Amino acid sequence: MQQKTHQITVPTHGRKLYDITAEVTGWAKSSGIKTGMMTLYIQHTSASLLINENYDHDVLVDMEAFFNRLVPDGDPLFIHTVEGPDDMPAHVRTALTQTHLSIPLLDGQAALGQWQGVFLYEHRHIAGKRRVLLHLIGE
Amino acid sequence: MQQKTHQITVPTHGRKLYDITAEVTGWAKSSGIKTGMMTLYIQHTSASLLINENYDHDVLVDMEAFFNRLVPDGDPLFIHTVEGPDDMPAHVRTALTQTHLSIPLLDGQAALGQWQGVFLYEHRHIAGKRRVLLHLIGE
Amino acid sequence: MQQKTHQITVPTHGRKLYDITAEVTGWAKSSGIKTGMMTLYIQHTSASLLINENYDHDVLVDMEAFFNRLVPDGDPLFIHTVEGPDDMPAHVRTALTQTHLSIPLLDGQAALGQWQGVFLYEHRHIAGKRRVLLHLIGE
Repeated sequence: MQQKTHQITVPTHGRKLYDITAEVTGWAKSSGIKTGMMTLYIQHTSASLLINENYDHDVLVDMEAFFNRLVPDGDPLFIHTVEGPDDMPAHVRTALTQTHLSIPLLDGQAALGQWQGVFLYEHRHIAGKRRVLLHLIGE
Repeated sequence: MQQKTHQITVPTHGRKLYDITAEVTGWAKSSGIKTGMMTLYIQHTSASLLINENYDHDVLVDMEAFFNRLVPDGDPLFIHTVEGPDDMPAHVRTALTQTHLSIPLLDGQAALGQWQGVFLYEHRHIAGKRRVLLHLIGE
Repeated sequence: MQQKTHQITVPTHGRKLYDITAEVTGWAKSSGIKTGMMTLYIQHTSASLLINENYDHDVLVDMEAFFNRLVPDGDPLFIHTVEGPDDMPAHVRTALTQTHLSIPLLDGQAALGQWQGVFLYEHRHIAGKRRVLLHLIGE
């Protein structure tokens, strides 16, 4: 049994879903591990992780439309507005999605379903650099 | 330290929560591993996983009522309607629940709480076959 | 490769986010494991786990304000009201947040981001004792 760790940095330029599937699955494949468990962990509270459909780009547009309506920027409900009208909505959106993802590794590959992609969901409108830790255990 | 992997197929016949507790905990028990971590992973983007109360069936009815109101079918907000009015809502519901679950194994058993059950949440109205990968590491 | 397990009990006194960061990271540090994966698992269906900002207390106030509006107590939509108007909302809030969290361990420490804290989210108004299982694998 062995472990591998890795870190990726995702440059973001405003609120949207960034496809990190190729980078994540590429690292898993290059690890040499055949069977195991990969875990992704994002070290932020205003950006999150999500597995969703990566075939039709409209899904990403609709996903953002939904979250934008559910957690509107500048909602007078919020008192934590230090960094602007998208500050607290970014924390709520993070709470409603994922800070970590676990994906099995089978036959030396991340066992994503046919239509699944791995996304980093940037919830702030500003540009940033987001850190995602990757961990793999197996043999 | 050792690993075990398994795959289960859950036949679904419309939108609802399907109890897979017995199948999942039975596999864990039969693995021979005493202490470890079990991870479930669903390879779909319009069905998800959820741990919730499995004692009173009304909880499942109410859970569906809530999600149905929060993410209504046929919402004019959505442009991704290729597979019908429940297509995009299924992706959103998946994003709001879980694609993977991790459950510790203690004393040779999945350490679920007294009232916890493991469910596959089918979000489409059509029938289908859903694949869930199981992974167990421990000793 | 080795495993460690632990259990913590969090006394709660009503609905709010309880910061368990110090207890969780302290245990990870004391384990002697340098690189690995820690998983937290809560054995309840009306309390959950959440990683979010732990710097400005207003974030916790706003988070609760959001969930209180999204899943109101006493909602006539719900039929499962056995334990009161906060019973079913507690199950829904649990479904929308996390029953388990995975956090990598690097250099002998839980690799939380700078502003991340680990919280137990009590969704009931009554007092209780909540069990969280901790599992660590690594070397």
